[in-house]
Amino acid sequence: MESEGAAGGRSAYPLPVPLGARRMAILAEGCFSPLGAKTAVCLVRYASSEVVAVIDSTLAPSTAERALGFGGAIPVVASLVEALARGPDILVLGTAPRGGRMASSERAAALEAIEAGLHVASGMHEFLADDAAVSAAARRRGVVLWDARRPPDGLGVSSGAGASCPVVMTVGSDCNTGKMTAAMEIHLGLLRAGVRSGFAASGQTGIMIAGTGIPVDRVVADFIGGAAERLVAETAHERDVVILEGQGSILHPGYAGVTHGMIAGAIPSGYVLCHQPTRERVRGYDVPIPPLAELARLYERAAAGIGRIPVVAVALNTFDLGDEAARAAVARASRETGLPAADPVRFGAAPLVEAVLETMRRS
Amino acid sequence: MESEGAAGGRSAYPLPVPLGARRMAILAEGCFSPLGAKTAVCLVRYASSEVVAVIDSTLAPSTAERALGFGGAIPVVASLVEALARGPDILVLGTAPRGGRMASSERAAALEAIEAGLHVASGMHEFLADDAAVSAAARRRGVVLWDARRPPDGLGVSSGAGASCPVVMTVGSDCNTGKMTAAMEIHLGLLRAGVRSGFAASGQTGIMIAGTGIPVDRVVADFIGGAAERLVAETAHERDVVILEGQGSILHPGYAGVTHGMIAGAIPSGYVLCHQPTRERVRGYDVPIPPLAELARLYERAAAGIGRIPVVAVALNTFDLGDEAARAAVARASRETGLPAADPVRFGAAPLVEAVLETMRRS
Repeated sequence: MESEGAAGGRSAYPLPVPLGARRMAILAEGCFSPLGAKTAVCLVRYASSEVVAVIDSTLAPSTAERALGFGGAIPVVASLVEALARGPDILVLGTAPRGGRMASSERAAALEAIEAGLHVASGMHEFLADDAAVSAAARRRGVVLWDARRPPDGLGVSSGAGASCPVVMTVGSDCNTGKMTAAMEIHLGLLRAGVRSGFAASGQTGIMIAGTGIPVDRVVADFIGGAAERLVAETAHERDVVILEGQGSILHPGYAGVTHGMIAGAIPSGYVLCHQPTRERVRGYDVPIPPLAELARLYERAAAGIGRIPVVAVALNTFDLGDEAARAAVARASRETGLPAADPVRFGAAPLVEAVLETMRRS
Repeated sequence: MESEGAAGGRSAYPLPVPLGARRMAILAEGCFSPLGAKTAVCLVRYASSEVVAVIDSTLAPSTAERALGFGGAIPVVASLVEALARGPDILVLGTAPRGGRMASSERAAALEAIEAGLHVASGMHEFLADDAAVSAAARRRGVVLWDARRPPDGLGVSSGAGASCPVVMTVGSDCNTGKMTAAMEIHLGLLRAGVRSGFAASGQTGIMIAGTGIPVDRVVADFIGGAAERLVAETAHERDVVILEGQGSILHPGYAGVTHGMIAGAIPSGYVLCHQPTRERVRGYDVPIPPLAELARLYERAAAGIGRIPVVAVALNTFDLGDEAARAAVARASRETGLPAADPVRFGAAPLVEAVLETMRRS
């Protein structure tokens, strides 16, 4: 990093409620579905004991299990007022819209929650704290606004130094193909195997789960590489391996810069390539997703000139397939790429964990 | 673009002095050399009639011609006080340091200039207007602070729509290899040939010359593609071709994200590859610059999956070679790549202009 940028580390966890003991109400109005409110879905998956209610009046009354196929009895309720009956201490704005702007209904819910004495967490590009009314209300009520997508101060240009331990980065065929989920499943699998793994959260959802990280897609463009380098370096402290959550996709006309910038800054030892087998095009764009083996080659060459980074495994998101079709998709992905493949959520992350262990042995 | 991002266009020219009639004093203390103060050097080259003095006490008294080999009798003076004798109306902070932070001496000079009634222009990542003392002084004295690297409001994610006319983008083996200069020389050559060319400035120096543009390396990382798309779309208005100034390099561990993001957002019809033949490694990094033909292939594949973009010509910066060596370097670059090559500053841009015309015919 630039010497001037020495202060730029991961964001600190800002809430007065300890991580693991939060009582979150999550707003996911109209979009609490597997590919809908990403932040809500991932918090239900990885911080389920901390979720007291999800708000989506189009589904209520229901449960997370019914809406997503997991999450058990977490209630889906129709309003913040109903959620308040569950005793939350935090309202989370649970959507992650393209462009990251807050809807007026979300702003109104934030104000209502603040009046009820709740802290509010948001992953939007637009910050709660920059909204005069929201921030005045929070000050008056003495609650914390957690803008999880606010980059830490003092980031700089990457040094190209690399990390002190192997880094495995999840990359994808598109946004929302399971990069965060695959990274978390691999990380948890490594921890269970006794490996000192560090999870490097690069997006708002991962940061809300882990409590810390750097929202790399929100930093100044010149500092993408520096942010990735710093995130990895800090996560690597006393760890044997870092699992770096990737962002965007090299196929994505809007987000390719973030993806490439992270790769160039982090120089991972290997990738886990994430894909949803039923997706044929980048969502919202006229860009076909090539066959997995070809996509793997594109990623392996993505930083050519800086380093050649192998894809070490494939993680599929088969949530929209039947069991048989899902198994077939995993087998086909493995056959086509010659790599270990898994749907880590559906069938377990063991093949991916093994691929990471092998990468660590080779590094 | 996102519908929410509709407001995000190129920056407006902010000074009350018309473009072309500015009287600029340029601060380049200790670094007024061909590869030193990039903003100063490029303003002397492309807005020479508007430069009344350059401040560099390590060279003064001197002239631009003696310091750079061009720029004629523009005086190089030792201090702002001496520069004031030339009747400037603007002080330009003429350096472009890595990381873009303002030195305390530059801040002091800005304050001194403001007290003398000058407007101040800066291309730093750190904004003049965010400095309480500088901005209070400017208000009090009624002068304008031009933070040329401040992105316009309302940028969003790119739509992938592409531009209404062919776009040729300059790309490089590293930073500061002549991408801005090659773009400007090609643009001026096209204008002279009667082609309605638009110059799309993506960096602070180009913006100071052209008066408008988008500093793509300073936008929110998620919006790099959207910024490039918007810059190109707006520049394309009533133009037959857009010459897009590139940023960074796909070889650069820090800036590769900006380069890739611009390519993915702009989807140019072709590249002009810029290189300084004596440079063997990316400056400040352990990254060798591959042979030009291989580098051209890397660029051609850089957006593979989104589009295959040909390199249509090579622009060399041979400022540090003798005439014979420069001619040999140009001939070698052309031979190795099979493409037209030129040092547009030294030998004229005709081969590059012809390559762009050919690209327009093919598009």
